[in-house]
Amino acid sequence: MKGVFMALSGGIGGAKLVLGMAGILPAEQLAVVVNTGDDFEHLSLHVSPDIDTLLYTLAGISNPETGWGRANESWSFMSALGELGADTWFRLGDKDLAVNVYRTHRLRSGRTLTEVTADLADRLGLSLAVVPMSDDPVRTHLDTDSGLLEFQEYFVRRQCEPAVSGIHFKGSECARPSPGFENLLHSRELAAVIICPSNPFLSIDPMLSIPGVRDSLVNCIAPVIAVSPLIRGRSMKGPTAKIMGELGIPVAASAVAKHYEGLIDGFVLDSSDTDSADSLADSGLKLAMTNTVMQTLDDRISLARNVLEFAHSLR
Amino acid sequence: MKGVFMALSGGIGGAKLVLGMAGILPAEQLAVVVNTGDDFEHLSLHVSPDIDTLLYTLAGISNPETGWGRANESWSFMSALGELGADTWFRLGDKDLAVNVYRTHRLRSGRTLTEVTADLADRLGLSLAVVPMSDDPVRTHLDTDSGLLEFQEYFVRRQCEPAVSGIHFKGSECARPSPGFENLLHSRELAAVIICPSNPFLSIDPMLSIPGVRDSLVNCIAPVIAVSPLIRGRSMKGPTAKIMGELGIPVAASAVAKHYEGLIDGFVLDSSDTDSADSLADSGLKLAMTNTVMQTLDDRISLARNVLEFAHSLR
Repeated sequence: MKGVFMALSGGIGGAKLVLGMAGILPAEQLAVVVNTGDDFEHLSLHVSPDIDTLLYTLAGISNPETGWGRANESWSFMSALGELGADTWFRLGDKDLAVNVYRTHRLRSGRTLTEVTADLADRLGLSLAVVPMSDDPVRTHLDTDSGLLEFQEYFVRRQCEPAVSGIHFKGSECARPSPGFENLLHSRELAAVIICPSNPFLSIDPMLSIPGVRDSLVNCIAPVIAVSPLIRGRSMKGPTAKIMGELGIPVAASAVAKHYEGLIDGFVLDSSDTDSADSLADSGLKLAMTNTVMQTLDDRISLARNVLEFAHSLR
Repeated sequence: MKGVFMALSGGIGGAKLVLGMAGILPAEQLAVVVNTGDDFEHLSLHVSPDIDTLLYTLAGISNPETGWGRANESWSFMSALGELGADTWFRLGDKDLAVNVYRTHRLRSGRTLTEVTADLADRLGLSLAVVPMSDDPVRTHLDTDSGLLEFQEYFVRRQCEPAVSGIHFKGSECARPSPGFENLLHSRELAAVIICPSNPFLSIDPMLSIPGVRDSLVNCIAPVIAVSPLIRGRSMKGPTAKIMGELGIPVAASAVAKHYEGLIDGFVLDSSDTDSADSLADSGLKLAMTNTVMQTLDDRISLARNVLEFAHSLR
């Protein structure tokens, strides 16, 4: 396979597939564009949860139990912070904190998130391109039955419990795609765009909300495919299914495909999701059915291989 | 003894005497004004080494071996930072970092250093007043045989090795005493001012460099006394003796007294420093000789008692 494959990813689900693709493609043929709608300022630190999940997963230092943070983490900072009576609802381990302090320092020194992310990837020994969706602040806010909540307030502090009735991407109207994202969107080398099995509403829509991105994806030279984050109406991790139910959307892979209607050329769904496949039969979408559960590294590489081959077949 | 005793202190030496005084005086009768000339921005964090040494010492959580930082400290953050290839010459332990992140966050949220320091003292369970000398930035810089160095560059990174030929307090010409310092300077309750056995050039002179402070001390209603940081020409900790030699000042307690000439009414020096006492005999200064070595808590309380009684005798 030739050309550059661009993955669009949120946190853990996307990171798993990207790790699989990184096991197949040489680094120069894979670029991952990461959601920054979850970013926030906490304790005056710039926290980029999805970028860090990608970096840690690809560098092999992620915590496999939690899905966020670093392996073999320690919590002395957090516990000392708690002793001071400060906010501890957002957990930053001692090692994770090193990345966040470093990033914040570089940003305050005038670097862009693009530069700092590339620098961090490099320092963590990665050679593929990890690209924030934007260097401008885009912040996901949610209308809920507990009022308007910032993303981390909803996701971490409230554990996704409030029912969601609306989603906003604050700042997106003025945001520009990051230079790396922009280049990839218009690259003549682009082989395929792969929308990872991330939350369509919370991880992918923030990217699509940036002016020009959706059109550029529709008009790019490569096929765009999405991998369903739902398997038999359930999300492996995170609130995708819960939010779809609350928004009155059928909780099924087919509804994810419809959410991406007009944008994607192909859709990958789990072999078991025959009902969804049936209902998409007349959609004009190319479908690929495969095992989409990624429990082991072999699962990830196997899914990645199927996804890449499917994308390649649509060129 | 009635009234409020104001101690002027740098880091470790001053903190020891203040701890002794805190063992004698009720909290409302003791206030410590702390040097902030050592403060600096590191990794975009506001680090206040002398304030923290005071806070940790008084709260009983200081590291007695190093003289800085916290007891039972861990270093995961620092080691992860090192793995990123970032600067690690200034050591911030995981627990120490909690205080520095918290302070930085509060300052960035619009609080003054006075407010944040009082808040931290409160959160660490202290009830005496710990007051930064100023809320405005005053930064100690040194002319050395290795060029102009910022204080921490000289003190920590270069381990005080460069020879010092001059000392500057950048920003002091525009700085104001903190509100707490200002109030103490003009308080009708002031019982005595005690210049702790801190480095006169690096810890006390920054305070005296703030416009109005020296005059206010000279004109305040209470006696001003200093405790010698030198014992038989040696400093217990830190570069006092070394710097005096480099600046061409006799390395003796008497030279410290002369440095404070016109400002102090009394001077406390070690019982063994009879030569210094002899040479100060005609100075008009009241002298007190006592053991000034503070190895145990008893030493600290004993010295503090002698200092307070001496100060009281000068009223």
